[in-house]
Amino acid sequence: MTQREIDAIRKLLTSKPRPVGWAERRARLDEVGSVWPVATDIRCESVDCDGVRGEWSLAPGSDAAKVLLYFHGGGYCSGSILSHRRMVTEAGRAMGMRTLAIDYRRAPEHPFPAQHEDALKAWRFLRRQGIPAGHIAVGGDSAGGNLTLSLINRLRAENAELPGCAWLVSPWTDLTMSGDTLAIKDAIDPLIHKAYLEELADAYAPPPLDRRDPLISPLFCDLHGFPPMLIQVGSAETLIADATRLAEAAGIADVDVRLEIWPHMIHAWPVWNAGLEDGRRALATAGEFIRMRIRQPG
Amino acid sequence: MTQREIDAIRKLLTSKPRPVGWAERRARLDEVGSVWPVATDIRCESVDCDGVRGEWSLAPGSDAAKVLLYFHGGGYCSGSILSHRRMVTEAGRAMGMRTLAIDYRRAPEHPFPAQHEDALKAWRFLRRQGIPAGHIAVGGDSAGGNLTLSLINRLRAENAELPGCAWLVSPWTDLTMSGDTLAIKDAIDPLIHKAYLEELADAYAPPPLDRRDPLISPLFCDLHGFPPMLIQVGSAETLIADATRLAEAAGIADVDVRLEIWPHMIHAWPVWNAGLEDGRRALATAGEFIRMRIRQPG
Repeated sequence: MTQREIDAIRKLLTSKPRPVGWAERRARLDEVGSVWPVATDIRCESVDCDGVRGEWSLAPGSDAAKVLLYFHGGGYCSGSILSHRRMVTEAGRAMGMRTLAIDYRRAPEHPFPAQHEDALKAWRFLRRQGIPAGHIAVGGDSAGGNLTLSLINRLRAENAELPGCAWLVSPWTDLTMSGDTLAIKDAIDPLIHKAYLEELADAYAPPPLDRRDPLISPLFCDLHGFPPMLIQVGSAETLIADATRLAEAAGIADVDVRLEIWPHMIHAWPVWNAGLEDGRRALATAGEFIRMRIRQPG
Repeated sequence: MTQREIDAIRKLLTSKPRPVGWAERRARLDEVGSVWPVATDIRCESVDCDGVRGEWSLAPGSDAAKVLLYFHGGGYCSGSILSHRRMVTEAGRAMGMRTLAIDYRRAPEHPFPAQHEDALKAWRFLRRQGIPAGHIAVGGDSAGGNLTLSLINRLRAENAELPGCAWLVSPWTDLTMSGDTLAIKDAIDPLIHKAYLEELADAYAPPPLDRRDPLISPLFCDLHGFPPMLIQVGSAETLIADATRLAEAAGIADVDVRLEIWPHMIHAWPVWNAGLEDGRRALATAGEFIRMRIRQPG
C-alpha cells in the first residue's frame, strides 16, 4: 500500500519536465502541492500580519487558543500558502490547534534576511493576539524548517519567550551542503539534488554572505535552550544528514529531541497526506508529540 | 523535579568509591540497580532457556502471548536479571507484554561470541513456546543494545524470521570508541568513560578480534531489513553518538527509526524508573512505540 502510494506521488512529481526558472518552479510547486484541496470541514481565513500575508485555519474541535505557526518549504524561492495548505490544515487537525501559515517574501527578489524579518513580524503579530509563547508551536518543512530554527535563534538572542515546541519536516539545516547523504541518496531522491540546492542557496544567501553563518545554517548555531523539537525525515531523502546532525547537535545541547526517519518517504511527504497513509501517520505522530508539550499553561 | 530526581540518582551512584575488579563491579551494579524492588503486582518466574538462565515477568493486564526479550547492560561484564529487574518488569507493563530477561554469560570469563550463542538460544527457546517472531520485541540497554542488534544481525544472516521491533536504550554500538561525544560528555557522564569502555571491550573482544567487525560493533553492520527501531539516549551520556550514528545508519538503510534524546538523563536511566519520572516516561513512550508495531499478527 505504502509503496504503491509513494510511487504514485513520485509519478505525479515527474509527470512533467523539470521546471526551469523561478516563475515556472513556483507554479509547479503550487500545482503539485494543491492536487488535493483542503478538506471541506476546515475553515480558512486570510490575515494581514502587519504587512506579511498569512492564513488562519481551524478544524472542527481544534483549540483556537493554541496555534501552529507554519513556514512552508520551497528552498526560500518557491512554495506558498497554496502549495502547503493541505499539509498545514491537516497538521492543525492532528495537533488540535489553530494554524497560521505565512507567505514570507521569497528569494531571489528578497534575499536573506527578509524571511527572518517576516517570520519575526508574524511571531509578534501572533503574540499580540494574546497567545502565550508556550501555546505556540512553530514548524516548517525544508527551508521552512530552516526558518523555524532561525526564528527561535533570533528570539533567544533577544531574550524573548520561546515557542512551546518546534516541528521540523525534512529540514534544510546546512546550506554549506556538507551532509554525506547528498551523495548517498542522490539517485533515489526525486526532488532534492546538490546542484539545485546550490542554486537556491545562491539566491537566498548570495556571496559575500557566509553560509556557515548560524543564522543561515542553523545546524551550526548554539541550540542550548531551544524548545522540544520533533524532526521528521524520509529515508529516500538527500537531506537525511541535515536532520540527523541537527538531532545530534540539539541532543548534545540538552534539548528534548525526537527524530523520526520514515522508510521510503520523500522530501516533505506530508504535503501529499491526502494520498499517502504515511503522510497522515506522520502528521498523527507529530500531533501527539506537540499536544504533549503544548498542554501546559504557557 | 526532574533535576532533583536525577541528582539523587547521581548521588546514589557515587555514594561509594568506584568499584575495582569484576566481582566488585558486578556486586555494585546489582546493588544500585535493585535499590527499588520489583512492584508487588508483578509475577516473576525463573526459567531455563535450554541451559541459559532466564526470568519471565507478567504485569496485571499484559498480554502473555506477546513478549519483550530483554538483554541487560553492564558492558558484557556485569549486570544481571537482578540489576535490571525493575526496569524490565516496568517495561513489560508499559508495553502490555510478558517479558523474558536473560542472564547471558559474561566476559571476561566468557568472551565474544558466548553472549551471541546465549541470545540465539533464548530466541529459539521463545519461538519454540509458540510465540510468532512478529509478536516478540527484542530490547536491551548499553551492551544489551549491542547484543539486541547482533542477535537480529545473526537471525537475518540465517534468513530466519525477525522480531517485530527493537528497543535500544543507551546502546553501545561502536566498540572502536570513535564517537565524538565520548570526549564532549566526559565531564558530565557519571558512569561511562573511554578508559572503562576500553577495559570492557578488551574483556569482551580481546585481541586479535577486530572491534570493527560488524558482529562486535553493530554500528558498522548492514542494517537493511532490520525491524522498526526505537533508540533512547540521555543528553548527559558519552554514548550519545553511538545512538545518533545508529539512527542515521538505520534510516539510510530504510529502517523505521525513532531516536529520542532525553535532556539531562544519564546512561540507562530507566533502570531507576521507580525514583525518576523521566525513567517512567521513557518506558511509557517505548510502550506506545512497541504496542503500535507489535499489534499486527506475526
